[in-house]
Amino acid sequence: MTEQDRTTEQDRTPVTVVGLGSMGRALAEAFLAAGHPTTVWNRTPAKAAPLVAKGAEHAPTVGAAIAASPLVITCLTTYESTIEVLEPAAEALRGRTLTTLNSGSPAGARQMAEWARGHGARYLGGAVKNVPSAVGAPDTLLYYGGDGDVFEEFAPTLRVLGGDTVYLGADPDLAALYEMAVGGTLLPALVGFFQGAAALQARGLPVASMVRFSTKWFEMINSTLPVFTDEIDRGEYGDPASSVNLFLAGAAHDAALGAEAHLDVTWHEPFHDLLRRAVEAGHGDHSVSALTEVLKLPQPGRAG
Amino acid sequence: MTEQDRTTEQDRTPVTVVGLGSMGRALAEAFLAAGHPTTVWNRTPAKAAPLVAKGAEHAPTVGAAIAASPLVITCLTTYESTIEVLEPAAEALRGRTLTTLNSGSPAGARQMAEWARGHGARYLGGAVKNVPSAVGAPDTLLYYGGDGDVFEEFAPTLRVLGGDTVYLGADPDLAALYEMAVGGTLLPALVGFFQGAAALQARGLPVASMVRFSTKWFEMINSTLPVFTDEIDRGEYGDPASSVNLFLAGAAHDAALGAEAHLDVTWHEPFHDLLRRAVEAGHGDHSVSALTEVLKLPQPGRAG
Repeated sequence: MTEQDRTTEQDRTPVTVVGLGSMGRALAEAFLAAGHPTTVWNRTPAKAAPLVAKGAEHAPTVGAAIAASPLVITCLTTYESTIEVLEPAAEALRGRTLTTLNSGSPAGARQMAEWARGHGARYLGGAVKNVPSAVGAPDTLLYYGGDGDVFEEFAPTLRVLGGDTVYLGADPDLAALYEMAVGGTLLPALVGFFQGAAALQARGLPVASMVRFSTKWFEMINSTLPVFTDEIDRGEYGDPASSVNLFLAGAAHDAALGAEAHLDVTWHEPFHDLLRRAVEAGHGDHSVSALTEVLKLPQPGRAG
Repeated sequence: MTEQDRTTEQDRTPVTVVGLGSMGRALAEAFLAAGHPTTVWNRTPAKAAPLVAKGAEHAPTVGAAIAASPLVITCLTTYESTIEVLEPAAEALRGRTLTTLNSGSPAGARQMAEWARGHGARYLGGAVKNVPSAVGAPDTLLYYGGDGDVFEEFAPTLRVLGGDTVYLGADPDLAALYEMAVGGTLLPALVGFFQGAAALQARGLPVASMVRFSTKWFEMINSTLPVFTDEIDRGEYGDPASSVNLFLAGAAHDAALGAEAHLDVTWHEPFHDLLRRAVEAGHGDHSVSALTEVLKLPQPGRAG
């Protein structure tokens, strides 16, 4: 065995993956492909079979799964379901590192961190910002918050899941916070896209014809984000590339599209309402990014 | 004069730009930079001055502006305001080509085409799918619908405005249709982004820290569009990468985020309602792209 081989062998930290939905399976497959000894557990054992065929160990109990590796990664639906699954074997976590990769609120992530600490485990709260098929790719983004020493220790292993692996800071809920902040564009953007799809179908046009245009449109949106964040961070909205009034003028077309394509466009109403409230607050000729201020509720205990 | 020079000279079709808002100015500047004889007109003449300094002719009346070029491009707010501005000089349009580059409904584009035909003008309805600063760039997208011979004749001139210049077909309202279909993601996506910005601010974090993550997130959304459009075009939603139920589970976090960051999240309610209606229609375990069907109103005169 050469020095190089030994180093490689040492880098292959044994890992345990608990929760084998489509994302959990993708995580385990990435570890297996990278040569990590990989133990898996799932409430429905049948989901482990394809991974066992690829070299994974299938633990008979969640406790045995935890005991098998210094790094335990859970990929369950919520923080609540994660605690529910781990609770019966919580003592096995003592001295190990728990990393969660699920969606949930920052408050849920803080409770999760508290629970792990109470059982003597170190904790990293993480999030995968991509689809299962992208796990393991060089530019796939995952981010983590929590114990910085833990991140340093396991970073080479965590990078197996995506080349763009980021440490956000010591608060264990930072990944959950960014997950919600960043991920909140998904459903609204998709509903806008599906409405466009329905409008093309109403004209007998293939929806696929829209993809290349929509792709460029999202690239255009990306190009505007640094401008908007600069305005928001400075709290200066007075030199707009696109004003609130411009968007409000465009909103008038929604009803026409709905009528022509027989679509339900009532989901636009809250957006029109936000624009009108922005105008009332004096933001009519300001950048549309001033909607950030309209979304903020008055702080409790402070005068408006 | 060489053959090459003559060809270049011939390619420089004189153009007129009517409407000198930020987009109209960008269009005129691109034509000037490419060496086209460029005539401009605006209701507020002061906006023409910077273009005149760059070599544009400033016509004294809209009629003189139209008479100056075989290709007249309008960039006004709506189809209604375009007709209002052109009406007094409509006879000057006879034998010329009118191209509109504004937002509006497909019905508005059809009325515009009818109006132009009534005054003996050929018509192309177009849309710029980008911001003014991107006009003239090699990958900037503009698309057009209307008379195919007109598009062929003026394509080299129109490509000055963006290298990705597309002819959608003979219907003069196709650009308006795609404009609304594709553009409908913008405001919902931005409001989702601004909500995330407000959530970071509530934690004292700079909003700029979100840009690189959000950029990747929109790239991820782009990667899903061909999958969704394939499902929608086939009307087959049964093999989902992301199900309606998965999104409905995520929707439960919205209230938690709102409470923690003191945000108004009521604008999410129509999305939750759409998801619930999709479940009621039997789409719970189907792809989220099945929301396309929920957005469609029953066709008048057809049984539901």
